[in-house]
Amino acid sequence: MPKVVDHDTRRRELVEIAWRMIAREGVEGVTLRGLAEAAGYANGALKPYFPTKDELFRATFEYVFERTNERVVARTRGLVGWEAVEAFGLEVLPLTADARDEARVVMAYWAVAAQYPETAALTVGQQALWRRWLTDWVAEAIAAGRVRSGVRLSSAAEALLTFFEGAQVVGVLDPVGGAARSLRAQLGEMISGWSAPGAPGE
Amino acid sequence: MPKVVDHDTRRRELVEIAWRMIAREGVEGVTLRGLAEAAGYANGALKPYFPTKDELFRATFEYVFERTNERVVARTRGLVGWEAVEAFGLEVLPLTADARDEARVVMAYWAVAAQYPETAALTVGQQALWRRWLTDWVAEAIAAGRVRSGVRLSSAAEALLTFFEGAQVVGVLDPVGGAARSLRAQLGEMISGWSAPGAPGE
Repeated sequence: MPKVVDHDTRRRELVEIAWRMIAREGVEGVTLRGLAEAAGYANGALKPYFPTKDELFRATFEYVFERTNERVVARTRGLVGWEAVEAFGLEVLPLTADARDEARVVMAYWAVAAQYPETAALTVGQQALWRRWLTDWVAEAIAAGRVRSGVRLSSAAEALLTFFEGAQVVGVLDPVGGAARSLRAQLGEMISGWSAPGAPGE
Repeated sequence: MPKVVDHDTRRRELVEIAWRMIAREGVEGVTLRGLAEAAGYANGALKPYFPTKDELFRATFEYVFERTNERVVARTRGLVGWEAVEAFGLEVLPLTADARDEARVVMAYWAVAAQYPETAALTVGQQALWRRWLTDWVAEAIAAGRVRSGVRLSSAAEALLTFFEGAQVVGVLDPVGGAARSLRAQLGEMISGWSAPGAPGE
């Protein structure tokens, strides 16, 4: 058993180094040799953990998605409706240098996934999770009378999802729309557009 | 003069081949040698047109942005306000196989631009143009009394911009939210959230 724990711990340590390397240099800038060097391993010693570069990338992308999702779960605990959507936004929007690094990794991943449909499975799972969360929260807002009549649950939840993906891009590449203050204002404007007039908290 | 025209025409022809190659195989899949082969040139004969791969990429990304923008200009001619935003959406959202190919090139470009800030200048210009268009159209909708009171022009225009970036991603990677019908419904839900109640055309 201890050996298995070691193996998983080591993999995790390597992935924690790898994701920052991808954020800094993109997928092309990262090699198993370069990672071994950065982690203080002999060249070739990474094979038991990541036999191929593809496996390293998959584990790294998974790690970044999980890292974000764990923060979302912690931050939204006990929240419902629009408050949960806003709290989700604070974790998912690239508002900090750290979150912009995550966004860089996500963008590197998208470029890979756009070419290799088998890699895209990871996005499909990630999108399905975020879709379930956002749909549940918007449904709670509707149930609480906090949503204007006529707003369609699925289109609003999907538009939020699309907006959050776009925010990764503008947060990294656009100093105007990607500024933290602007991103928060954009999310606020979407939510208030769909909010019932005079609803509590609007 | 004819020589210059030839040079520009040839560059354009090469870029028209290159952008489909990037859509199919990503930036890693495209080499000057491979492009020469696909275009029926001898190896090395592309040098006068694109001395480096970086110049080819820049010209190709520029071409895809211009290609989209030309369609937008044609489609939105004579339109104002929300109708112009909707028409813009029909050209910019990845609703067709061709537009999804453009989105693949844009995603490949983002991954490069996230690593090389000098490349990002192209996005900054593109974002500035789309920002000006969207801001003008939302301002026209406000002037026409088609926008709810309290909606802030800049946040709504920026949120639309962020949404359109995200749509490139979901259009390629997410079969649910990226379906043409869903993308159109998402844009409609954003616009109707900000539309004045009972305004004409709502």
